Amino acid sequence: MTATKSSSQVILAPIATDGWSGPCRLTVPSLALESGATLAPVTVAYETWGRLAPSRDNVVLLCHALTGDAHAADLDQPDDPRAGWWNPLVGPGRVFDTDRSFVICSNVLGGCYGTSGPTSTRADSADSADSADSADGAVARERTRWGLEFPHVTIGDMVRAQRALLLALGIERVATVAGGSLGGLQSLEWAIAYPEQVERAVIVGAAQRLPAQGLAIDDIARQAIMSDPRWQGGNYAPEEGPETGRALARMLAMLTYTSAAGLDARFGRGLATRESGWPGWGPRLDVETYLHHQAEKLAQRFDANSYLYLTSAMDRYDAAAAWGSDAVALGRIRAETLVVGMSTDWLYPPELTRDLAAGIVAAGGSARYAQVDSLNGHDAFLKDWDQMDALLRPFLNGQG
Amino acid sequence: MTATKSSSQVILAPIATDGWSGPCRLTVPSLALESGATLAPVTVAYETWGRLAPSRDNVVLLCHALTGDAHAADLDQPDDPRAGWWNPLVGPGRVFDTDRSFVICSNVLGGCYGTSGPTSTRADSADSADSADSADGAVARERTRWGLEFPHVTIGDMVRAQRALLLALGIERVATVAGGSLGGLQSLEWAIAYPEQVERAVIVGAAQRLPAQGLAIDDIARQAIMSDPRWQGGNYAPEEGPETGRALARMLAMLTYTSAAGLDARFGRGLATRESGWPGWGPRLDVETYLHHQAEKLAQRFDANSYLYLTSAMDRYDAAAAWGSDAVALGRIRAETLVVGMSTDWLYPPELTRDLAAGIVAAGGSARYAQVDSLNGHDAFLKDWDQMDALLRPFLNGQG
Repeated sequence: MTATKSSSQVILAPIATDGWSGPCRLTVPSLALESGATLAPVTVAYETWGRLAPSRDNVVLLCHALTGDAHAADLDQPDDPRAGWWNPLVGPGRVFDTDRSFVICSNVLGGCYGTSGPTSTRADSADSADSADSADGAVARERTRWGLEFPHVTIGDMVRAQRALLLALGIERVATVAGGSLGGLQSLEWAIAYPEQVERAVIVGAAQRLPAQGLAIDDIARQAIMSDPRWQGGNYAPEEGPETGRALARMLAMLTYTSAAGLDARFGRGLATRESGWPGWGPRLDVETYLHHQAEKLAQRFDANSYLYLTSAMDRYDAAAAWGSDAVALGRIRAETLVVGMSTDWLYPPELTRDLAAGIVAAGGSARYAQVDSLNGHDAFLKDWDQMDALLRPFLNGQG
Repeated sequence: MTATKSSSQVILAPIATDGWSGPCRLTVPSLALESGATLAPVTVAYETWGRLAPSRDNVVLLCHALTGDAHAADLDQPDDPRAGWWNPLVGPGRVFDTDRSFVICSNVLGGCYGTSGPTSTRADSADSADSADSADGAVARERTRWGLEFPHVTIGDMVRAQRALLLALGIERVATVAGGSLGGLQSLEWAIAYPEQVERAVIVGAAQRLPAQGLAIDDIARQAIMSDPRWQGGNYAPEEGPETGRALARMLAMLTYTSAAGLDARFGRGLATRESGWPGWGPRLDVETYLHHQAEKLAQRFDANSYLYLTSAMDRYDAAAAWGSDAVALGRIRAETLVVGMSTDWLYPPELTRDLAAGIVAAGGSARYAQVDSLNGHDAFLKDWDQMDALLRPFLNGQG
């Protein structure tokens, strides 16, 4: 959690209605979870871009992926694709047009970038966040970190937290909800759970449920974290977590975000071109140190327990679970839906994303399918900007 | 290493020429390795089935896969497909017909089932093996385990060890060399390195080299082992090794032996039907406990350092390395070659196995391609017995 992102600036309402809001937090008194538990209070960290129309009908909700955050865009650095996770798609005149739309993105429930999760304090209200500025406050905060006592959360819970945020901001309905991967599941769940509140849904690299291979990989990743002695049953101190296990989990996950053909094209069997602190075994290969590098980068910024909570929510998500069948669940959708698959997606292969679009249509809804053709695997929605732009723009302009 | 498999029965020569030989060991004075190092002495553990013809022209060499061993078949349990790793294919009247052929299989160099490797003693001759029967001998043997000082070995070195074994047994030429996965690489290397000594080669689930995705997975698996504190830089005592890391490595490897469609068909998203000692996170899934179970099984029987040596040898293998190009390497092959791909193979996808066959033909050799159509992924060559039988039998009978 960087200093910027963990800003404890708390605003309650009304929201900034002009330009970039900065990192904001809003605390809602309580949230009923799918498990039956109640989380109270709940803090939601978010950012906004653009102006909220007086009619409040220009809201675009962006849902981030597993290790993402609320910082979807940075309008001050429009040319740096990494300055926000969907930076090239958000801004004046862009796909998510901040001249027309009020764009909002919040950190997911269970995450570690400001929204309530295992790293936050049990009473993560405005008061306790403020008191953390003193040394005593920091100690108190440490003592009351949720850790594994934070309740298990679901994709549905993440969506409820977003809905609570929007309602607190006086927003009843969204013009567009959009996201990829874990964010795509949220987008789908929004369209199913709140059919009257969603005008358009963009679901990228996601489907009704994750297939067995992805489930298996996620479990191995979680086992790597939980079997690291430094995990300590989840009760590690900040900065003393299961770095190795988390790194192994990240290497595995990064692999699932790529494609076999993409790895061959980029790395092949070439020798390492960068250093690695991981033990070598024979000549070091480029594809190895790439994964080591990615793992180190994540270790500096992501909480291991949050990783367990969020991957588990992804694994356990089944769009049909609450409704009995895909037909009933997808039949609830009233939104105009665009489902985007990636040609080399390993986690949610294009056949599954295509089936999701077909399922919505079969259930009487309106959906179209589009595909990013790329060697970038599951991560194509965070890399193939031209194609993403070309696929999303006509749909969002009502011309698709 | 089971008691049976670690039998220290040492025979030098001549070999048993009738029926099953039992687990045997043969020690050769020295072996020059590709790295330039010399390993002296080298013990090779092997088993044989059938009779060696007086003309010594009926030899079938079987090469086992990563965690396999010399026990390819058990003629006393012909109906148990697990009684030997290719049990349904070996026996009287079977694909590898012990009524006609003299079948031999040795444990690979670097392995942990009797052939010299990191678990064996530095002077693993008959004398030291015998002395291990006393308590003092056991201590002495422990002190002199190779561990990571065992030299790195290659697929080429494994083949040289097999060649040394055969020569010591008075066998100059093999009628057939056959194997899958790591064994398929050995089969290919035999055909390239000893073109005049191989009449027929069966190469299953292997290609000239492993693609980047497999390299990456193998590195993550090795990192899981090496980052386990119990690995202790490779200097763990027997029975005190990096169980957790090795288990994680095995879960990963098992996953690569399956296919996405196969996992969906067998496990889907079903709840666990067996117990697991691994920490759970949310409802336990069947695909998770399957991997846990497989990992526990391997942990009881396979050395972690051997796992590092053998996966590394697999990764580093490049059929063209010593010859400058595939065309030159494959052009050396004089054997009639059958390359078998598996339709859902993740490690060596069928396009690569098909390319290997095409490459041999393009280089002027004789090769045909056959495919096992199955959801069993890379492991199909150890499961789809009827197809394996149907593909191999006509080739080995000269009718294919």
